[in-house]
Amino acid sequence: MSRIGVFGGMGPSATVDFMDKLVQLTPATRDQDHLPVIVASLPHIHDRSRSILGTGPDPLPQLLQGIECLNEAQVGVIAIPCNSSHHWYAQMCERSKAPILHIASSCVAAIPEDGAPVVAVFATRGALASGFYQRALADRGIEHIVPEPGRPQELVDNCIREVKAGQVQAASVSLSQAFAAAQAQGATAVIMGCTEIPIAARSADARGLMLLDSSLELARASVNFALERRWNRPGWDS
Amino acid sequence: MSRIGVFGGMGPSATVDFMDKLVQLTPATRDQDHLPVIVASLPHIHDRSRSILGTGPDPLPQLLQGIECLNEAQVGVIAIPCNSSHHWYAQMCERSKAPILHIASSCVAAIPEDGAPVVAVFATRGALASGFYQRALADRGIEHIVPEPGRPQELVDNCIREVKAGQVQAASVSLSQAFAAAQAQGATAVIMGCTEIPIAARSADARGLMLLDSSLELARASVNFALERRWNRPGWDS
Repeated sequence: MSRIGVFGGMGPSATVDFMDKLVQLTPATRDQDHLPVIVASLPHIHDRSRSILGTGPDPLPQLLQGIECLNEAQVGVIAIPCNSSHHWYAQMCERSKAPILHIASSCVAAIPEDGAPVVAVFATRGALASGFYQRALADRGIEHIVPEPGRPQELVDNCIREVKAGQVQAASVSLSQAFAAAQAQGATAVIMGCTEIPIAARSADARGLMLLDSSLELARASVNFALERRWNRPGWDS
Repeated sequence: MSRIGVFGGMGPSATVDFMDKLVQLTPATRDQDHLPVIVASLPHIHDRSRSILGTGPDPLPQLLQGIECLNEAQVGVIAIPCNSSHHWYAQMCERSKAPILHIASSCVAAIPEDGAPVVAVFATRGALASGFYQRALADRGIEHIVPEPGRPQELVDNCIREVKAGQVQAASVSLSQAFAAAQAQGATAVIMGCTEIPIAARSADARGLMLLDSSLELARASVNFALERRWNRPGWDS
């Protein structure tokens, strides 16, 4: 059971980025220092955001298949580098023997106590409608805003869609504009609450905003979970 | 069975690089256009090269566990982005219901017919001792050399070890020097026959040598295998 399970493919580039973060966050000088990981990258799952908004089919049966696949592969914990799918977090947990780390809990926990930031949540319209980020921020008493539903949220939508289409440069331009709009709206920090956004952020202009990377924080929580249990030290002699 | 199986973790960064190549090679404008992939990243497997050279324990039982894990996850083909492990290719094929693509066959098949290149094989000392690249090149009648076992091969060894330790910049320096040595030895092309090497090659000086990337060619063979079978078009309505 000493393996991290990654339920990915939502989208595939975000899954690669998440796996890279797992590798980078693990202290290692050779292969055998690293953590065992099983990845189910299942990109055909129905669009999560559209389903939440009532304009697309329900992905829950497919999400449960992915959870079962990872449990059958004997994983000891599951990370899902897709924010919108956490709308169905409770149902996935109910089906899983392995605990599932919550991406929004990991990300919101990483916001520093001091400085009283005003946090803008960048996410799909579905994730914003679901409201799990807003609830996690309210639970910590952190002031937060979401992009206005017209042009500002459209810029976030474009950024996400462009990364999924492999147009990372265009996505960075969209994201830079979305950062500017959030700053104009009073934000001092931005939660990148969709795992495509950090890929665009690599070459975007963040204008001095504090950035919180949901994918990075989930990777950190996953690595910490595994290192605490010494999954990097198997029974095998090395 | 419409899933690509990736047996990875040898090493973990090379697996991330390979997954990135699968994503980049797949024609897609949205998540649902991509290919389903199951990855078993099992980094604790004993050092393949040391075992072939008789200085370390046998990884075969662990390799067979990985193959079984992927077969249990119902994959329809297996790719192993680790060259040295192909020393045990026949035994892994015998244990697997799913066909296993051979990384060296994929890579050598990508060498263009014309130009009569002199190909240097950069790989671990174990993979060179195993000889599967030399045999695949001889089968195609392609002239080939291996680095001299002193300083030239040491540069390749250093490059591989440095990537595994996360020291990519140092690895690029080692690799640039290895390219220069291969050119001095008469090479006009280099097979990057260890999946760590392409990571170092991103910022190395290849001195006009034709580079053949074993990881890229295996990814291309995997994507082609899956697209021919329309694994990007599942039964699910989208």
